[in-house]
Amino acid sequence: MGGSNATAGEVQLAQELGALIAGEGWVLLTGGRNAGVMHAANAGAKTVPGSLTIGVLPSAGDLDGTGVSPAVDVAIFTGIGEARNVVNVLSSDFVVACGGGGPGTASEAALALKTGKPLVLLAPPDEARIFFTSLESSVPVALAATAQEVIDIIKTRNAACAR
Amino acid sequence: MGGSNATAGEVQLAQELGALIAGEGWVLLTGGRNAGVMHAANAGAKTVPGSLTIGVLPSAGDLDGTGVSPAVDVAIFTGIGEARNVVNVLSSDFVVACGGGGPGTASEAALALKTGKPLVLLAPPDEARIFFTSLESSVPVALAATAQEVIDIIKTRNAACAR
Amino acid sequence: MGGSNATAGEVQLAQELGALIAGEGWVLLTGGRNAGVMHAANAGAKTVPGSLTIGVLPSAGDLDGTGVSPAVDVAIFTGIGEARNVVNVLSSDFVVACGGGGPGTASEAALALKTGKPLVLLAPPDEARIFFTSLESSVPVALAATAQEVIDIIKTRNAACAR
Amino acid sequence: MGGSNATAGEVQLAQELGALIAGEGWVLLTGGRNAGVMHAANAGAKTVPGSLTIGVLPSAGDLDGTGVSPAVDVAIFTGIGEARNVVNVLSSDFVVACGGGGPGTASEAALALKTGKPLVLLAPPDEARIFFTSLESSVPVALAATAQEVIDIIKTRNAACAR
Repeated sequence: MGGSNATAGEVQLAQELGALIAGEGWVLLTGGRNAGVMHAANAGAKTVPGSLTIGVLPSAGDLDGTGVSPAVDVAIFTGIGEARNVVNVLSSDFVVACGGGGPGTASEAALALKTGKPLVLLAPPDEARIFFTSLESSVPVALAATAQEVIDIIKTRNAACAR
Repeated sequence: MGGSNATAGEVQLAQELGALIAGEGWVLLTGGRNAGVMHAANAGAKTVPGSLTIGVLPSAGDLDGTGVSPAVDVAIFTGIGEARNVVNVLSSDFVVACGGGGPGTASEAALALKTGKPLVLLAPPDEARIFFTSLESSVPVALAATAQEVIDIIKTRNAACAR
Repeated sequence: MGGSNATAGEVQLAQELGALIAGEGWVLLTGGRNAGVMHAANAGAKTVPGSLTIGVLPSAGDLDGTGVSPAVDVAIFTGIGEARNVVNVLSSDFVVACGGGGPGTASEAALALKTGKPLVLLAPPDEARIFFTSLESSVPVALAATAQEVIDIIKTRNAACAR
Repeated sequence: MGGSNATAGEVQLAQELGALIAGEGWVLLTGGRNAGVMHAANAGAKTVPGSLTIGVLPSAGDLDGTGVSPAVDVAIFTGIGEARNVVNVLSSDFVVACGGGGPGTASEAALALKTGKPLVLLAPPDEARIFFTSLESSVPVALAATAQEVIDIIKTRNAACAR
């Protein structure tokens, strides 16, 4: 998850993360739009042969062919607008907020905590880090500085759960 | 789309249709539950190597591991209950109602017409055939007696659209 | 519930029903749009002093001031498009489909049966009457020829439940 | 909006705010549950004769009669779970986050900024104040220390819009 208006650094991080996720053989799920962190993560994943990218979109369809990232393999058109943020979170095993993001990303991070999904903040601004770690939740908030650290965090948690 | 309580004949039709859809290299999207037409279509598709099945579920997660068809590759947990029927329809290029179904299937067929999605009724009861062809809609309702006829209808329409 | 494109007879029925519902002191809930059966029912209700009308809309807001029936007291903007049909049904104690309606009304009638809400078909076309009474459901489908008959059906059921 | 687990101070603030909103003749809309800030605000509003309270609930119905605040006049059962937070925000002219709240309240404050709704933070913790005022948004974030200040902020903005 991340901003549709992303900095160059956030785009770079999202591409790296998408490629690493795909490299693990995991499915990448994003908000699917042709913008910012969403598109960058999908584009990163599609550099890996055999990758699978799912885009869960707010719209009821891609009417003019420009709304969906071309790096999305399967587009889920929800037609429920911003309420689709909940679908993104519930359908993910791990939620990663990449960079600062805007209010949309903030709502997804909050919904991850609300619904008990493991949340990783990747290179968050101080304000976001301090806020989300201050909220009461049944799941811990993990912090990562690099895309590789996100992968390591997920693997460590998965190993702990499997034990 | 089809009933969670399906007759043996409906289950057979759904399996055949799932296999044929996968054989064309198309993605199969269903309501994803481990029941009736949904599971049968997914199971049919998974007999085909390289197939991809998407399940769009009403629930917020598969808490006890029994709710999702094991033949679903990617589960989208919407958490929006019956409102997920709209997501199913909007995310499909063609909507096929397999057999009689119950009120849930009826709502999906109606939503297909409401949102302008091509609708195929496969072996419908007379009451359903007469009702859905009586509704005003911007899209025609096609009728099929066999799974192969559904595939033929979709191919004919796609060819017409591509021209 | 009913069509946004309604016949003169359906508009008349909806106005009468809205007025009768309000006259009983009941809250009228519709899809809230400024069209057809929805507006007519709200307008009928607002002829009764002290009436309360709720409109549950598909849109995220009334951007140009023309989308919401002016006879709606409280507008609920869901922003979830056609998925709001489920909200209408779940928030109603009784669901009345007024006249023929189109695919949207058909989806609401089907969702009423799916979610176990008492459904009354008021002056339905033959095709709708035959179809909805053919579906398996935990609730019976009642038929009414006049707005007053709808009220009588609801009162009879309420009395039976209270016993 | 506010936490279902609220402090005594937050409950007091919510009651005061509910009473003041109702005293202005405004409609109070909350998440409708029988808990914390939601119930307190509704209870405060219902001390005012002629008040109207709307509860927009995540559930598909009040199955055991304990889920809905008894101070809610009209319950909207969305059946869409946490996605109903979007409905709350879109249906409100002003969004007030009362006290700290948890992740659910955080998602609603974020969604208010995302959808361009005026947001007032009433007695927020420092972390929330700093975070939400750091997010890019088309609408300003207002801060209030008392329930009366919330009312004053809304009136000032309404007057500015009417000019």
